[in-house]
Amino acid sequence: MVKPPVHRPWRVLRSEYLSRRPWFTVRREEVQLPSGVVVPEWYIFEFPDWVNVIARTKEGRYVMISQYRHAIGQTRYELVAGCCEAGESPEESARRELLEETGYGGGVWREWMVTSPNPTNHTNRCYTFLAEGVEPIAAQQAEPSEDIEIHLMEEHEVRDLLERDEILQCLHAAPLWKYFATR
Amino acid sequence: MVKPPVHRPWRVLRSEYLSRRPWFTVRREEVQLPSGVVVPEWYIFEFPDWVNVIARTKEGRYVMISQYRHAIGQTRYELVAGCCEAGESPEESARRELLEETGYGGGVWREWMVTSPNPTNHTNRCYTFLAEGVEPIAAQQAEPSEDIEIHLMEEHEVRDLLERDEILQCLHAAPLWKYFATR
Repeated sequence: MVKPPVHRPWRVLRSEYLSRRPWFTVRREEVQLPSGVVVPEWYIFEFPDWVNVIARTKEGRYVMISQYRHAIGQTRYELVAGCCEAGESPEESARRELLEETGYGGGVWREWMVTSPNPTNHTNRCYTFLAEGVEPIAAQQAEPSEDIEIHLMEEHEVRDLLERDEILQCLHAAPLWKYFATR
Repeated sequence: MVKPPVHRPWRVLRSEYLSRRPWFTVRREEVQLPSGVVVPEWYIFEFPDWVNVIARTKEGRYVMISQYRHAIGQTRYELVAGCCEAGESPEESARRELLEETGYGGGVWREWMVTSPNPTNHTNRCYTFLAEGVEPIAAQQAEPSEDIEIHLMEEHEVRDLLERDEILQCLHAAPLWKYFATR
C-alpha cells in the first residue's frame, strides 16, 4: 500500500467571502506557502457535496439521462446526478435524485466511488453509488430548471459512449470507467 | 453507435461579467428554458483549457506528483497537470507542464482523453495525454505557487491508489481508470 504523501499545508493570511449565493459561494484568500511565498488571491468555491449513480435495471440496462448543459452549450449523455440537501446522507440524496429525474427506485445500493470535482478550488466531494436492480416506481418529477430525457441503454452502448469520450463530464466518466475496469 | 441526444438549448436573456481575474472569471446569466421557465441566476466560470498527462518512463514507471490542495486542505497524489497558455496546443502545454513540474520529457505522445471539468458551469475542456518512454532531461522548475514532490511509481502502486480513491481529483482518476480499463 502506497504511503500518504508528505503534507505541507499553506497558511491563510486573509479570507473573505465575495458571494454567498446558491451555486456561487466564493471565498478569496491570501495564502502563504511553506517556502514563504505569498499568493495574494486564491479563489475557493464552496458547494454542497454532489452525488451521482450508476443505476442498472433487473435486465441489466443502464438508466442514463441527457440534458442541455449551459456552460458548454451542448446536450450530453450523463449519469443521474445532483446535490446533497441539508440533513441527507449521500445515499439518500442519490436515491432522491434517481427517483425525481427518472422515476426509478428500489434495487440494491452500495457506495462505489468518492472523487473531488477539483481539490484546487472546490471544497466538496462527489459520491457515486452503484444501484443494481432498479425499476420504475413513480413518474419523473424533475425541477423546473431541469429538462431531462431518460435513456435505457445496453452495456455496449454505454461502453461506446465512454470510448468516444461522449460522456464528457469527468465526475461521471471516472466512476463508469472504474466500473468497466474492475468487473 | 449511440446517436446524439436531442438538443434543446436555453435562451440567454441577460449576461454580465462579475469578475475577470485569473482563476476567477465569472459570468452571471438570466436564462430561459424551452419550457418557458426563467432561471434568473446561472453562474458560468470561464477557464482556459486544462491538460494532464499519464507519463511512463522507459522502465514502465508512472511519473506521479503530490501537492497540497488548498480548497480541501489535503495533500494528494496526482498526475502532472496545468493550464493551456495563449498560443499553445494542448500537447505543447502538457509537454511544458511535465518538464516544469518534474524535469521529464521526450517519449512518444498521444491524446488519450477529453473531459469536461463540469459542463454545468465550466466553459473549458481538460485534455489528457499518454506519454510513453519519458526520461529526466532537465531540473524541476515549478512556479513559486507550486510545491510539488515527484514520485516514480510502479503500476501496482498506481492501481492501489486508484482502488482506494486516493487519486481524488476526478480529472485525473477518469483518464487513469480509462487506461486500466482498455489495455
